[in-house]
Amino acid sequence: QIDSARLWGSIHETAQFGATAKGGVRRLTLSGEDKQVRDWFRKACEEAGLDVHVDALGSQFGLRKGRDMSKPPVGIGSHLDTQPTGGKYDGILGTLGALEVIRTLNDAGIETEAPICIVNWTNEEGSRFAPAMMASAAYVGDFTPDDILSRKDIEGTTVGQALDSIGYRGDKPVGFQKLGCFVELHIEQGPILEAEGKTIGVVDSGQGVLWYDGKISGFESHAGSTPMPLRRDALATLSEIVLAMEAIARKHGPNAVGTIGEAVIANPSRNVIPGEIAFTMDCRSADGAIMDALDRDLRTTIAEIAARRKVEVEIDLVWRKPPTHFDPKLIAAVENAAKTLGYSSRRITSGAGHDACNLNTIMPAAMVFVPCKDGISHNELEDATQPDCAAGTNVLMHTVLAIAGV
Amino acid sequence: QIDSARLWGSIHETAQFGATAKGGVRRLTLSGEDKQVRDWFRKACEEAGLDVHVDALGSQFGLRKGRDMSKPPVGIGSHLDTQPTGGKYDGILGTLGALEVIRTLNDAGIETEAPICIVNWTNEEGSRFAPAMMASAAYVGDFTPDDILSRKDIEGTTVGQALDSIGYRGDKPVGFQKLGCFVELHIEQGPILEAEGKTIGVVDSGQGVLWYDGKISGFESHAGSTPMPLRRDALATLSEIVLAMEAIARKHGPNAVGTIGEAVIANPSRNVIPGEIAFTMDCRSADGAIMDALDRDLRTTIAEIAARRKVEVEIDLVWRKPPTHFDPKLIAAVENAAKTLGYSSRRITSGAGHDACNLNTIMPAAMVFVPCKDGISHNELEDATQPDCAAGTNVLMHTVLAIAGV
Ligand SMILES: NC(=O)NCCC(=O)O
Ligand SMILES: NC(=O)NCCC(=O)O
Repeated sequence: QIDSARLWGSIHETAQFGATAKGGVRRLTLSGEDKQVRDWFRKACEEAGLDVHVDALGSQFGLRKGRDMSKPPVGIGSHLDTQPTGGKYDGILGTLGALEVIRTLNDAGIETEAPICIVNWTNEEGSRFAPAMMASAAYVGDFTPDDILSRKDIEGTTVGQALDSIGYRGDKPVGFQKLGCFVELHIEQGPILEAEGKTIGVVDSGQGVLWYDGKISGFESHAGSTPMPLRRDALATLSEIVLAMEAIARKHGPNAVGTIGEAVIANPSRNVIPGEIAFTMDCRSADGAIMDALDRDLRTTIAEIAARRKVEVEIDLVWRKPPTHFDPKLIAAVENAAKTLGYSSRRITSGAGHDACNLNTIMPAAMVFVPCKDGISHNELEDATQPDCAAGTNVLMHTVLAIAGV
Repeated sequence: QIDSARLWGSIHETAQFGATAKGGVRRLTLSGEDKQVRDWFRKACEEAGLDVHVDALGSQFGLRKGRDMSKPPVGIGSHLDTQPTGGKYDGILGTLGALEVIRTLNDAGIETEAPICIVNWTNEEGSRFAPAMMASAAYVGDFTPDDILSRKDIEGTTVGQALDSIGYRGDKPVGFQKLGCFVELHIEQGPILEAEGKTIGVVDSGQGVLWYDGKISGFESHAGSTPMPLRRDALATLSEIVLAMEAIARKHGPNAVGTIGEAVIANPSRNVIPGEIAFTMDCRSADGAIMDALDRDLRTTIAEIAARRKVEVEIDLVWRKPPTHFDPKLIAAVENAAKTLGYSSRRITSGAGHDACNLNTIMPAAMVFVPCKDGISHNELEDATQPDCAAGTNVLMHTVLAIAGV
């Protein structure tokens, strides 16, 4: 059994780095707050006797030796960055839970056959730089490190510049740390476990993601003197797209969602009809065929709206992550650990994307979910209980022991 | 006849203060660029022998003596501030046209019976600070100067601070300069004169304006893991409001417009459902009953949308300007001047608000319109011809001479 109080303490100690007035965390990837939590994490890893390295994209790796160093390490961990108005658990539980596993094994003097490597992946959230799960995507070869290093945030700062500014452009090449498999603990970020009174979600699959950058070019003109029929209003166009996206997602049933999270009017003024808007779209489904249908429906509908309103709408697919089907053996290991420990559990699909989904494309991976209050995440009010967090970490530890061998 | 080349030269010389790459002007009220054009204007007024004063809200007044100084001056002028992506003519033609009238009278050695006062009103555009036509509104008593001085821009800078920062908080109390009447020359900012091939618009009325500040409070949550039916999406709410506003304006016929020009998502992120949006609304009609109906329909519809989507929407009416009916005698004077000079003309309603609309509430006022290309305004592509600008200025001069007496 892990030390529930120590885990809880770590979570709340690090929550000070970017703490918000509403009890959440604002710790954008590669920001000053991110540097603070990274420094804390490095020190904690070193104190736990781990061999710590940082790769060229800033991901932190802490290796615990195994008896058989020819075996690839069992990877565990998650991320420590947050949304602009994020919570204290998303990613953090999985990273500090991994640290807690190491501390517990150390205290108990348990050696494993295979080594264990705990990881803090850079930019999982995708809020400052797209795509999300950026570093693990590069790790599995979905993007080249150079491509990722050149990605820009809204201020034009590149990933490379941001890494340098906090001193976290590591000296190890991306992929230097081989892993044999990866298990990630995370809050569910959805309402199912809580609603069904289950403690552990055995994650067997994850939704695919489509991310788009969009730009609408209408025509700025005077709000008072431009008759309604002569307008080429970029905001009215966006409004139709937002509602169309909502209708399309609903049409494809419970297994699809669609969101426009960002929309910025260029040079806004009360009495000017918006002429130009940049926006983003996020569409998901656990079913690849539905993802294709979402993409098709969106493009057709947007083209119709643009033609009718005589505006230009450009849509650029910047990220496509297919649905994830986790490794059956690892899923069974998680399920077994939950059962052995006496926690109630159920199989579950992840609505959110996770680093484990990327890793699953080149190695066996799986995830452990615990409930979060009202299914709320990406919100400062995000909450989870100490017993649930401890339960998830215990399941993580027992899964690791089963895979790594004692 | 005014000096067309000199007028054109003034317009293009001052267009350098805030010139944009696309040939427009970005000269927000009380900005550094606004200071530059104000300094230019003061110098030009002094060189034309005018007695220049600045009031507590920064409006510039240049007085040309008349034979009978007991008579209240005939006021002419407009504004030199622009939209964020504005043109070279909106307001500028009327202000520099007024200067050109003075220069022409000086050159011709013409004395008038009543004095003439040319004015550059502060913040006509209403883009940086609300309401529009701010200084003339205070001049006629619609707002107290203290109220106006405390208005804030989006950065939190007050009008008072902005005035001080460019050294244009004048020593004269608002209203110190009495005027007997006011005539304003302006580009039409709409398509009618050009379409009908008329040179002069004799403005007999102006649309009323409703300005609202709005705020939507939904709930931030995860774009991937929040099912569509559980969302309280602020942007989807705004989208319904935008389209409802469009439908309501259209329903009330050609004599109504409605625009949402500003909308800002708080803490936007690609994978977060927008939780909070601040926005503005601008509704207009030349018919007071239609204005009331617009307000009523909007409030009802917004309440319905908010209830259905389980979000809060606050709507705050920050400005209500009733429709304007200009002074019949002054309208006739403008019409007569156009006829005498041989320009084609027609009566017209102003779609935009103007300082003359404010002044009309306490003194006789009227306006002269000239065509602008494709009716485009509040756009960097705004354009007008030199002959039309000269024609309008000639009509302004002859109207002034008729009122002031030679
Ligand atoms: N787990 C999580 O919130 N990841 C962020 C990436 C996404 O799914 O949008
Ligand atoms: N003339 C003009 O564009 N005024 C700005 C105020 C408004 O009508 O919105």
